[in-house]
Amino acid sequence: MARAWHLKSRPDGTPTHDNFELKDIELPSVEDGQVRIRNLWLSVDPYMRGRMNESKSYIPPFQIDAPMDGGAVGEVVESNAEGFATGDLVSHFAGWRDEAVLLAKALTKLPELSARAQDFLGNLGVPGATAYFGLLDVAQAKPTDIVFVSAAAGAVGSAVVQIAKAKGMTVIGSAGGKDKCDFVRSLGADQVIDYKAGPILTSLREAAPDGIDVYFDNVGGDHLDAAFARSRLHARIALCGMIGGYNSREPQGFRYMIRMIAMRVTMKGFLYGDYVGRLDEFYREMGALMAAGAVKSHETVVDGLENMPDAFLGLFTGANTGKMLVRV
Amino acid sequence: MARAWHLKSRPDGTPTHDNFELKDIELPSVEDGQVRIRNLWLSVDPYMRGRMNESKSYIPPFQIDAPMDGGAVGEVVESNAEGFATGDLVSHFAGWRDEAVLLAKALTKLPELSARAQDFLGNLGVPGATAYFGLLDVAQAKPTDIVFVSAAAGAVGSAVVQIAKAKGMTVIGSAGGKDKCDFVRSLGADQVIDYKAGPILTSLREAAPDGIDVYFDNVGGDHLDAAFARSRLHARIALCGMIGGYNSREPQGFRYMIRMIAMRVTMKGFLYGDYVGRLDEFYREMGALMAAGAVKSHETVVDGLENMPDAFLGLFTGANTGKMLVRV
Repeated sequence: MARAWHLKSRPDGTPTHDNFELKDIELPSVEDGQVRIRNLWLSVDPYMRGRMNESKSYIPPFQIDAPMDGGAVGEVVESNAEGFATGDLVSHFAGWRDEAVLLAKALTKLPELSARAQDFLGNLGVPGATAYFGLLDVAQAKPTDIVFVSAAAGAVGSAVVQIAKAKGMTVIGSAGGKDKCDFVRSLGADQVIDYKAGPILTSLREAAPDGIDVYFDNVGGDHLDAAFARSRLHARIALCGMIGGYNSREPQGFRYMIRMIAMRVTMKGFLYGDYVGRLDEFYREMGALMAAGAVKSHETVVDGLENMPDAFLGLFTGANTGKMLVRV
Repeated sequence: MARAWHLKSRPDGTPTHDNFELKDIELPSVEDGQVRIRNLWLSVDPYMRGRMNESKSYIPPFQIDAPMDGGAVGEVVESNAEGFATGDLVSHFAGWRDEAVLLAKALTKLPELSARAQDFLGNLGVPGATAYFGLLDVAQAKPTDIVFVSAAAGAVGSAVVQIAKAKGMTVIGSAGGKDKCDFVRSLGADQVIDYKAGPILTSLREAAPDGIDVYFDNVGGDHLDAAFARSRLHARIALCGMIGGYNSREPQGFRYMIRMIAMRVTMKGFLYGDYVGRLDEFYREMGALMAAGAVKSHETVVDGLENMPDAFLGLFTGANTGKMLVRV
């Protein structure tokens, strides 16, 4: 019998264990064009919080008492579809469970790169591509730029730091607490800010006395306001996460947004999905950076499907360094 | 003896008459390469509030006890410079006074268009060019777009409404009070919102049930938040004024900025100064729209140099419809 996490109730503010329930599910038989997958790795992502609300977003909300889903990497254990054989490794979107029967077209065979399976949920997956295209395409970062990135110890942020350094940029990363800051420093960041140690604006002023050209935003709030305050002429802000705002229904206050006018700042929201047509370019470039050792993988692994809610809740208390994964 | 307004003290919050002092000034003699100008029209603009603060912005702050300046149109009354003759009409930046001696290179002879002198402080001046380039270049507005513009009865906003309608766009304008709303309707706006009659978000939802593609922002605050809330996919926001924030030191609160991610919204700050290299294009296009009657001039005129502070303070209480001018 397969098992899948279900959303039992919609969280009000920060989620709790009571919002989730692990239930047995009946898998259908594998029909023509379908395969059965045994999941190896499940992705645990901040954006999933948004799907727990009822409101429509860029991705449909989770339904109450239905299996949840998300990114995953698994192994084909039974195939009735051309092109897929037992033992093939695939990425797909039927996460939050141990097994699934899926149409072949819902699967992506992992490309032939000298990388581990779980990398395709990290630096070679959604977080890595989000970092790559957000930094280089959305924010148009150039080698001479001073780049500020928040949540720099997270899955996306740690990739941003490493890609930016590999391209010759000056990088300021922020993270919460000494361990995470040490980690960000180990990634090559030129300056590291512990946002728990004092007002982010004060820290950023010290870390970037000449201001910043790019801000890769993963958290919104005070970090974004500090970026407004320190933006240089023609600075670019890529809006990706705003994890700080996911659990909150309070408005975010900004004192320095008005500087966007004087400094002609451009701020853009974007999603990974905008770039699926350019994944070949990404695999080629990011694969090369990883093969050269310029971008390394860092993950926090929680073992066991039954601990998926722990892993998810940990995102909001800063439990992860790098990509948060569940090993099934 | 010439007279010029001086900044007596920096305002704390909303300015008052006590912040200004009208003083006699000694004009120097007209040296080689110089002309003496008698001002006819003085520009009265919201951005001048920012210059009353000490902090550096895109334009230097006014100095305490020094003559203030700003846009103006005047007549040459004495010339010692090649290319300028008595009676020539010129635009320049020595406003807030009745007479000035200036270098010829600080003057622009008004181009040969069938327009009145004061139009070069309005639809053919900074507000008109701000509207034109902000709408068509910064926000990349297209004929099929639904355009929302705030302060639509003001100098910039009224030009935005008229240019957008001339280009075939659907236009929603907001203004405060029945008279201003009637005025915006008379400019051709498809929908008019009286922001004093209720929450702007509710009104915008009614006026734009399908959402908006472009927001031309002149005020920031709740209007901007409503624009975030109603943005459609790939909406563009041009940030120009934020007059609501000029007098305030409180943070502006936003609940809906996070929608910039899902809707891939682009928001850009810009200034008139970015486009001075394209004024020929502007005079040609805007001159044609005015000659065709598609864009009309609307101004609020206050008579007498001594009433300049009244005119300026009136900007913040909504005293003007269209461009605010002082006739010297």
